[in-house]
Amino acid sequence: MKNVKIGIIGFGNVGQGFAQAIQQKREFLRESYGINPLITAVCDTFKGSLYNSDGLDLNLLAKPGVGFDEFKAEEKTGWDASEMIANAESDVILELSVVNLQTGEPAVSYITQALNAGKSVITSNKGPIALRYRSLRALAQQNNVKLGVEATVMSGTPAVRLGKEILEASGIRSVRGILNGTCNFILSEMKNGSAFKDALASAQKLGYAEADPTNDVGGFDTAAKVSILSEVFFGERVVPADIPCEGISDLTPQDIAKATEVKSVWKLLGTIDGSTLPPKISVKPVMLPESDPLAGVNGAMNAIQFQTELLGQVTLIGAGAGRLETAAGLMQDLILFFKEE
Amino acid sequence: MKNVKIGIIGFGNVGQGFAQAIQQKREFLRESYGINPLITAVCDTFKGSLYNSDGLDLNLLAKPGVGFDEFKAEEKTGWDASEMIANAESDVILELSVVNLQTGEPAVSYITQALNAGKSVITSNKGPIALRYRSLRALAQQNNVKLGVEATVMSGTPAVRLGKEILEASGIRSVRGILNGTCNFILSEMKNGSAFKDALASAQKLGYAEADPTNDVGGFDTAAKVSILSEVFFGERVVPADIPCEGISDLTPQDIAKATEVKSVWKLLGTIDGSTLPPKISVKPVMLPESDPLAGVNGAMNAIQFQTELLGQVTLIGAGAGRLETAAGLMQDLILFFKEE
Repeated sequence: MKNVKIGIIGFGNVGQGFAQAIQQKREFLRESYGINPLITAVCDTFKGSLYNSDGLDLNLLAKPGVGFDEFKAEEKTGWDASEMIANAESDVILELSVVNLQTGEPAVSYITQALNAGKSVITSNKGPIALRYRSLRALAQQNNVKLGVEATVMSGTPAVRLGKEILEASGIRSVRGILNGTCNFILSEMKNGSAFKDALASAQKLGYAEADPTNDVGGFDTAAKVSILSEVFFGERVVPADIPCEGISDLTPQDIAKATEVKSVWKLLGTIDGSTLPPKISVKPVMLPESDPLAGVNGAMNAIQFQTELLGQVTLIGAGAGRLETAAGLMQDLILFFKEE
Repeated sequence: MKNVKIGIIGFGNVGQGFAQAIQQKREFLRESYGINPLITAVCDTFKGSLYNSDGLDLNLLAKPGVGFDEFKAEEKTGWDASEMIANAESDVILELSVVNLQTGEPAVSYITQALNAGKSVITSNKGPIALRYRSLRALAQQNNVKLGVEATVMSGTPAVRLGKEILEASGIRSVRGILNGTCNFILSEMKNGSAFKDALASAQKLGYAEADPTNDVGGFDTAAKVSILSEVFFGERVVPADIPCEGISDLTPQDIAKATEVKSVWKLLGTIDGSTLPPKISVKPVMLPESDPLAGVNGAMNAIQFQTELLGQVTLIGAGAGRLETAAGLMQDLILFFKEE
């Protein structure tokens, strides 16, 4: 069994969920994979920063709503993220900072610094990966460390690994997905008779949609995820801004009724058609026949569907967000990178 | 790049499909995984046997309907399967023989011999694995070789690996699946108005169902698969004969209509509920609400659904049979065992 020392940048919902997930599965990680996970450092813009080279108290970190003043005085460091990367003993940095989606900062800088310091990085931040995956991955290779991105698309539902590690050998021709839970929730409500604005209000009330829902309903969140998948599955670099992108806000009750008439449903799909090169990439609402497995994906669930040469169609349906769900994705990368053979 | 020498027992649909899959993906296997696959030996009860320590002509093996008399005279050996295992240079044996489902023979004997000879084994034969997975896996470990079973359930749709390698860390609570394409095809036809006997006749006409359909429609094929999954995901050994098993042949048009009335559909599900130990295991028709992702799995498609502690529900839908589809599953194990790190 080996100690795996983990530094976490950003201790909000996901970071705290990760601590909880690690705590719940600690014995399993030790017994099945020979990994003894130690969270040595945590740094959060609002909460402050903690460090203990032997590992912070995991039970405390895992306690919902824990305040940093509950930790020992000597564990409080005052480090910012960059100082934490430089000074804390860690094998891997979990990069979970709050990110500007236009620039990918400060995540891009943190990831770059960590990789250059010879630390692996695991992130659920789609911003830096959509914008810079290729160069960051090259930097990881150059430094002989790993960069994990499973949680950037569909949280812990293993879309990236299923395609990249398992289905690739069957020849992936095209990929399409329901990659934004907010839009899928709204479309499910509209199918049941709600108007767009009422469905959006419900989504906001339930915490699925933000006060400004543009990023979701405009399709831009989906475009960022499609951009990541394009690089992962087809080695094709495309920045989100270059993806033709149509959202769901113009869909009318008449459009919905028309779909129902022909036994179909509307879904916002991100699509990468790699059957000809360069792949054709788009984000737009598509009318799917009810017989398509994607048509049955309701509410906030996400899904990805592969068309392959040898194996035909393969569809994976699961959570697209959530604190423990995203933590599960981070943990999958942790295991992949550090398990004992 | 390393040569991986492959011996194939049973050169029917699947064996020949494997040769074709390997031929189609040969460059990919070399470039992405450093595997140079060489089929050195093939042995088939009806067709005879071939051997070339440098690899048989892959283009010829991959040719649909190829006869063994098209190969060089010096490549014909007259070996039976056991002689092939003993005499042929091979790193891995593909065990694809025709099997007695009650005894698992002759596959159990072939697999045992190969493992004892220090060769890895990959099989799509569910019989020997449903009956003897635990002891055969132990034998593989003892001999420091691998035993691949991905293709025994859902052909190349990676049900085994998704659960065992990726979702296990999220805590698998229960598993259920549509694991028999024949039954799912019949139930889909019945939902569209056919009586059971007419739907069965269609399935037979399309080659989905055999002349004696008992193994499929009685649920026994599903029970064998559930038994494998129980061992893989929960370490719980249960022989198929001990699984409570109810088939679909008693479902009436009235039952189907009743389901439609309450917006539900009938599916034959194999279920392993591991939330309490020992797991509760069963095979029976279940009425699923239309909102369940499994409800939208139509025709001959298969699906598996996991309930997990961290990640909630994850559903994988894909092919359950087919020559290239099964070959894809065999190839996934081949890559997993022999790829260069």
